Amino acid sequence: MGIVVQKYGGSSVANPDAIKRVARRIVDAKKSGHDVVVAVSAMGDTTDDLIDKAQAVSPAPPARELDMLLTAGERISMALVAMAISDLGFSARSFTGSQAGVITDSVHGKAKIIDVTPGRIESALAEGHIVIVAGFQGVSQDTKEITTLGRGGTDTTAVALAAALGADVCEIYTDVDGVFTADPRIVPAARKLARVGAEEMLEMAAAGSKILHLRCVEYARRYDIPIHVRSSFSQKEGTWVIPDSKAGDEQMEQAIIAGVAHDTSEAKITVVGVPDKLGMAARIFEALADAEVNIDMVVQNVSAAATGLTDISFTLPRTDGQAAMGRLAKIQDEVGYDQLLYNDQVGKVSLIGAGMRSHPGVTAKFFSALATAGVNIEMISTSEIRISVIIDESRVAEAVRTTHTAFDLDADEVEAVVYGGTGR
Amino acid sequence: MGIVVQKYGGSSVANPDAIKRVARRIVDAKKSGHDVVVAVSAMGDTTDDLIDKAQAVSPAPPARELDMLLTAGERISMALVAMAISDLGFSARSFTGSQAGVITDSVHGKAKIIDVTPGRIESALAEGHIVIVAGFQGVSQDTKEITTLGRGGTDTTAVALAAALGADVCEIYTDVDGVFTADPRIVPAARKLARVGAEEMLEMAAAGSKILHLRCVEYARRYDIPIHVRSSFSQKEGTWVIPDSKAGDEQMEQAIIAGVAHDTSEAKITVVGVPDKLGMAARIFEALADAEVNIDMVVQNVSAAATGLTDISFTLPRTDGQAAMGRLAKIQDEVGYDQLLYNDQVGKVSLIGAGMRSHPGVTAKFFSALATAGVNIEMISTSEIRISVIIDESRVAEAVRTTHTAFDLDADEVEAVVYGGTGR
Repeated sequence: MGIVVQKYGGSSVANPDAIKRVARRIVDAKKSGHDVVVAVSAMGDTTDDLIDKAQAVSPAPPARELDMLLTAGERISMALVAMAISDLGFSARSFTGSQAGVITDSVHGKAKIIDVTPGRIESALAEGHIVIVAGFQGVSQDTKEITTLGRGGTDTTAVALAAALGADVCEIYTDVDGVFTADPRIVPAARKLARVGAEEMLEMAAAGSKILHLRCVEYARRYDIPIHVRSSFSQKEGTWVIPDSKAGDEQMEQAIIAGVAHDTSEAKITVVGVPDKLGMAARIFEALADAEVNIDMVVQNVSAAATGLTDISFTLPRTDGQAAMGRLAKIQDEVGYDQLLYNDQVGKVSLIGAGMRSHPGVTAKFFSALATAGVNIEMISTSEIRISVIIDESRVAEAVRTTHTAFDLDADEVEAVVYGGTGR
Repeated sequence: MGIVVQKYGGSSVANPDAIKRVARRIVDAKKSGHDVVVAVSAMGDTTDDLIDKAQAVSPAPPARELDMLLTAGERISMALVAMAISDLGFSARSFTGSQAGVITDSVHGKAKIIDVTPGRIESALAEGHIVIVAGFQGVSQDTKEITTLGRGGTDTTAVALAAALGADVCEIYTDVDGVFTADPRIVPAARKLARVGAEEMLEMAAAGSKILHLRCVEYARRYDIPIHVRSSFSQKEGTWVIPDSKAGDEQMEQAIIAGVAHDTSEAKITVVGVPDKLGMAARIFEALADAEVNIDMVVQNVSAAATGLTDISFTLPRTDGQAAMGRLAKIQDEVGYDQLLYNDQVGKVSLIGAGMRSHPGVTAKFFSALATAGVNIEMISTSEIRISVIIDESRVAEAVRTTHTAFDLDADEVEAVVYGGTGR
C-alpha cells in the first residue's frame, strides 16, 4: 500500500464535531493500510476573522506580517486534527508548511511553491505516524520568511506533497460530491462526472468552475498526480481527475463534452478608437501588466481602413476593474484613443471537452443553441478543448441550461445536491 | 543608546485598541534612540480559548500538539503588534520563538530555555527594524520541535532575549504599577517599591507574589539583567529589580524588609505514624518525586522515642494534591505509616528582606505580631532573607496586614490602585 494524501478545506474542519469526523476518515485510510498525509485549511471563518483583526490595527498591514498572522489559522486546525486522531488511538504529528519543507518564492500573499523537501514527513511516516500538514503556507527559499500561497493554496499544498512523496492519489475533500457537468444550482439536471481529464479540468477551473483551483490542477497535471475530488460528508466515490498520460487509455469511452462552466466574476473593458499604428495594442497591455491586472479574453476588431481606428475589448476580474481603468486613463494622450467603456454586467459561458478536438460541429451546435435561446454573443475565445463566449450577465443561467441540454448532458434523474463550493 | 527589551502580557494586547496603545509605547522607545525588541504574550483569553478547543476534540491531547496549538496565540498577537507599529510609520518584523533562536529542551508544556541564538534579531535590528518576538515559545535543540515554556513564559523569553542581546534593561509591562510591599487588594496601605534586589524578588516570587514569575527572576539574576516592572497603562516609573552585583552598592539605604507575600494555592499533607527507621522519609519523597509533585515546605517532628513513630508534614500545590495522596496510599504497606491527613484550607505568609540577615529579632517580631492577632502557626520555614509560616487560610489576610503594619511598611497615604496581576 502506498501513500495517500488527503486535503480538507475550512468547512470540513469548521468545528470540533467536524474535526472529529475528519479524524475518523483519516484513521479509516490508515487502517486500510496506507501511509496517510493530510493537508488542512484553517477552520471555517478563521482566516476572515484574522483579516478583520489585522484591519482593526492597520488599514494596510505589511504583507509579511499578514502572512505571519494568517498562518496561525492552519496551525490551529492542524494541531486540533492531530489531537482528534490521537484521541482515536492513532499517532499523528502536525507540521507547519516550513517544517514540512514547502519551499516557495518570496511573494507574500501569493507565493508559488518552488520545491518540496519532505524529509521530516518521510521520517514521521517511517515511524508509523499519520502526518498533518498546514495547507496554504510555506517558507521562502532566499529569506526564510513565512509565506502564504493565496486562494486555493491548500489544494496546491496537497498536490505538491503528493508529487514530492510519490503518492498514489491526492484526495481533495470538499462539501460537494465531485465535479459536475455544470453548476447544479443552475442546472438541476447536472451529472457528477466519474472521471475527467486533467486538461479538461484545467480548462473548467480557468472557465469558472470553483471545485478545484487552477494552480492545483496545473501542479497535478505537471507531476501526473491523480486527484480524487469527493465529499467529506459522504462515503460516495467522487470525481477522478486523470493525468493526461493516463487519460489516453480511456479516450475511446470519453464523451465529447465534459461540461459547461460559467463565470460571472469578470468585467469587459473596450478601448474605443485606437489609432491603427504598430505597437499601440502592445502599449495598452503593457500598461495593464504594470498595474498587475490579469487579462482573460481579448478581441480586436479588424481595422477599419476608412478611419484608421480600431476597437480593442478584453475581459478581466471585476476586482481589477478600477485599477485597469485608472491606468488606461493615464495613457490616453500617449495612445490617442477616443474613450473607454466599462461593463461589469457580463458573464462567461464555456463548453469544455477533450472530445471536441475530433468532433467538428461542436462550435456550430453551441452557437446555434444560444441563438435559439435568443442569447447575444459579445466576445468569443477558443482553445483546442474549450469554447467560451461573453454574454449579458442576466442571460448566463439560461445559456448554461440551454447548452447543457443541447449537448445531451442532462441526467435522466435529478439527484438532490447540496452545492456550496468554497473555492479554498 | 543600547538595546531595550520590553515585554507585554496578554492583558496589554487584549484587543485592537490595547495593541495600538502598546505600539505607541514601543515607537516612543524607538524614537528615544533605542534598539527595541519586544516579547508579547497571546491576546487576552486566546490561550484559554485554544485550550477549550483542544478539550473539545480530545480530553487528553498530546503535549506536542498542544504546544503546536498554543503557539498560534503569540503568532497572532506578534503579527498584529508589528502591523500596528507599521501603521505608525515605523518598520517592525515579527519572529516566532524558533525564528528568534529561542532554543529549549524537549519538555513540551514546560520547556526550559537552554540557549538563545539571536542572529535574525540582530540582523533585523541592524537594518533599523523594531523586533517583535513571540513569547512563551521556543524550539527544542535535539528534535527541532515547537515547545512552550509554561506559566510566566513570556517574562522568561524577555529576560532571555535581554541577556542574549546584552540589553540595557528588560522592561516588564503589566497591569499594575510595580512590585508592592504586599498585595494591595489585601493591604490598601501597601507601598510600591522603587527598587528591590533580585534575591529578594526571587524569594517574593517563590512566596506567592504574582508580579514576576520565579523563572524569569532566576534568569535575570543569573545574567545580571536589570528588570523594570511597570504599568502599560501609565507613564509612571515602576519597580526596578536590581541585579545582586549592583544591589551591594545601595545596601546602605536598603530597608530591612522588602515586603510581605502570601500564597493560598498550597495544601498540606501529613503522614501520621511513620516508623522511625532509616530511609522511610526518603521513600516517601521518592514516591512524590516519581509522581512529579513539587514539594515546598517540609517539617518532621522529633521522633517520639516511646513509640518509635514520627509524623512528616509537607506543603505542595493544591493541584498536585490528588496525585500525591494517591501515590502515598500505594506505599502505605511498604512504609508502614498509620494514616494520611490532607488539608487544603491553609495559607502561607512570608516576610522577605535582604536586610534581615544583619538584623536579629525579625523572626521574634514577626511571630509576636501573629500571636497578638491570635493567628496560630502550623509550620515554619526560613531562608537567609525570608521567613514563611503556614497558617489557617481564613486568617491569611489579617496576618498579612498585621505583619505589614508591625514592620512599618504602611504608606502614609493610600493610593488608589487597580490590581489584577495575571501571572503571565
